Amino acid sequence: MNEEETVVTPWEVKGKLDYVKLIEEFGTKPLTKEIIDKLKSISGGQHHLMIRRKLFFSHRDFDLILNLYEEGEKIVLYTGRGPSGPVHLGHYVPWIFTKYLQDVLHAKLYFQMTDDEKFLFHRNLTLKETKKYTIDNALDVIAAGFDPKKTKIIVDSENISYLYKIALKVAKNITFSTMKAVFGFKASTNIGLIFYPAIQAVPAFLEMELTGERTYTLIPCAIDQDPYWRITRDVAAKIGYTKPASIYNKFFPGLLAEGKMSSSIPESTIYMTDRDEDVKMKIMNAFTGGQPTIREQREKGGNPEICTVFQYLYFLFEPRDDKIREREKACRKGEILCGECKQYLIDKIIKFLGEHRKKRKRAESLLDKFLMK
Amino acid sequence: MNEEETVVTPWEVKGKLDYVKLIEEFGTKPLTKEIIDKLKSISGGQHHLMIRRKLFFSHRDFDLILNLYEEGEKIVLYTGRGPSGPVHLGHYVPWIFTKYLQDVLHAKLYFQMTDDEKFLFHRNLTLKETKKYTIDNALDVIAAGFDPKKTKIIVDSENISYLYKIALKVAKNITFSTMKAVFGFKASTNIGLIFYPAIQAVPAFLEMELTGERTYTLIPCAIDQDPYWRITRDVAAKIGYTKPASIYNKFFPGLLAEGKMSSSIPESTIYMTDRDEDVKMKIMNAFTGGQPTIREQREKGGNPEICTVFQYLYFLFEPRDDKIREREKACRKGEILCGECKQYLIDKIIKFLGEHRKKRKRAESLLDKFLMK
Repeated sequence: MNEEETVVTPWEVKGKLDYVKLIEEFGTKPLTKEIIDKLKSISGGQHHLMIRRKLFFSHRDFDLILNLYEEGEKIVLYTGRGPSGPVHLGHYVPWIFTKYLQDVLHAKLYFQMTDDEKFLFHRNLTLKETKKYTIDNALDVIAAGFDPKKTKIIVDSENISYLYKIALKVAKNITFSTMKAVFGFKASTNIGLIFYPAIQAVPAFLEMELTGERTYTLIPCAIDQDPYWRITRDVAAKIGYTKPASIYNKFFPGLLAEGKMSSSIPESTIYMTDRDEDVKMKIMNAFTGGQPTIREQREKGGNPEICTVFQYLYFLFEPRDDKIREREKACRKGEILCGECKQYLIDKIIKFLGEHRKKRKRAESLLDKFLMK
Repeated sequence: MNEEETVVTPWEVKGKLDYVKLIEEFGTKPLTKEIIDKLKSISGGQHHLMIRRKLFFSHRDFDLILNLYEEGEKIVLYTGRGPSGPVHLGHYVPWIFTKYLQDVLHAKLYFQMTDDEKFLFHRNLTLKETKKYTIDNALDVIAAGFDPKKTKIIVDSENISYLYKIALKVAKNITFSTMKAVFGFKASTNIGLIFYPAIQAVPAFLEMELTGERTYTLIPCAIDQDPYWRITRDVAAKIGYTKPASIYNKFFPGLLAEGKMSSSIPESTIYMTDRDEDVKMKIMNAFTGGQPTIREQREKGGNPEICTVFQYLYFLFEPRDDKIREREKACRKGEILCGECKQYLIDKIIKFLGEHRKKRKRAESLLDKFLMK
């Protein structure tokens, strides 16, 4: 067997993902029933779709954050985006949950645009290009519905005056050895990338720095970002801030094969700005768990567990639990064909993106309000 | 013989300095007669004291700068100071020459306060302390007489918004390997210090960035800063800027032994804010080339070449060439005693610091004008 190696770092996610193993490897904790029930109780509603379907699955100190919230402490949210291309569903999905957390925890959100990191990482990417993507991506962020009064988008290269002094304090407490061990940096790594994790740590402390209050930061993001928070948590106490907590999502599936959606293969992803034709073409070509022929499909049934169309419905586009169960059963029994599921998904995505398009248009006039000054 | 090893890096200067060897090691060039004559001709006056006495002794492309100036190109000066303590004569002396260059070349000056580097380097130094020293030191800088219309003091941590994007471009083109080779950084070096040379490079490019014009930067500074400019020069063309040139001074002698003045031994240095009593005490205790007894001094004469009092007079406090020659001769012949020389120097320093004190007082009201906004 020539099994593909699984790699999960902030720059690379490849191979078949075993999330149980990932939790062990990263040293994070699974979201237990007790914790998700508490979140539900605080929310006053039902379990969020992304909790029910276990898209968010792991955490560091999320239980403590809920306790602190109940005790009346101020919770601050922090997440971000590396603006090196257009936003796709894989990026967008955690923002939906972050918006939910903002509502539930009445929390201020710092949203970091890590244009510096993207510039430093991609050989041919210029600061002009990252600037273009920063504005483009910010519209998608705003379209996710964050509270304009409680949300600040930090653009690293533009807002560095807020970040640098705190980054210096962080950097003073991290050696190159640690960077090597945590991120696999080499002697050939550029010194910007080596310093950069200090910048990514800062928004976890920014509210405390700006207000002088003791607050508690919660970071919802994909699991590949955990190495940053390990470093950030290690340094926090040494420089007088509280340790940030985190809650992690799995990677949103790609349309072609297993693993994270990849921006380098446009066909594997649905971009937030895709046209209806793009959506149709991509979903029609998506990898499914169906049989090679209609006859075989009717006889043997499909395999929803490996079907990307089913996963799209499962994680986002079929929020009703009864309906997703019915669809799964019908697929396994061969009662529905892949074409039907694809058409169902296409309609859902086109509707979703159509609404997003309107929100994105409205976001243009809000941009100035959201950007940190 | 247990000879002390000579070490010259931006953080450490120890041992007996052989400046000819240092030029070879660093790969810089000596200031030739042709070059200093050209500077004299441009200045329309005499050779500057610090050129005559060879305190400034080496360079990179200083000859090109003079040619470019004659061709009508815009020359920009850049120097700086690490604000980790009070300013002493060793720091101040190159500023006198920089002020001269500003007048001769009609040049704008960027003066960088590297508070970030000092914070990152000194384990126990806080940003609050570097801030205090930044303001304190800036008064000495201004007192050196720079043109308020043509001089901007950059405080790294405060003015980072001007510096960061350019620093990113620099940093993207420097690997940890290079840092290791040039600065001797180790795996245990903190990631702030590893990144910092990118920040120190920036003011060499700032005028071009801010104006969009092609300008040429000249950096007058002590020879130990050369490693920074080697890096900066290597990167310049890759990121679209002209290579900075540099002109280097020797270390101003200490009062106790050979080598650079050291801030860690207050008795070895004259601070710009020393009181008259301090000056008297320090010079009276200074190391001289005199004989142990008056009789021996009268018989054998002294050794001005190892005398710190003579060096102080030579490099700064006895600008008249005829007088310094007379004094040297008189010393060698035993015609004057160390006490006389010391008293002469004390009077000169007290007068010099007295005037500086007044200029420093006036500088308080100019501070705001000088600081980059």
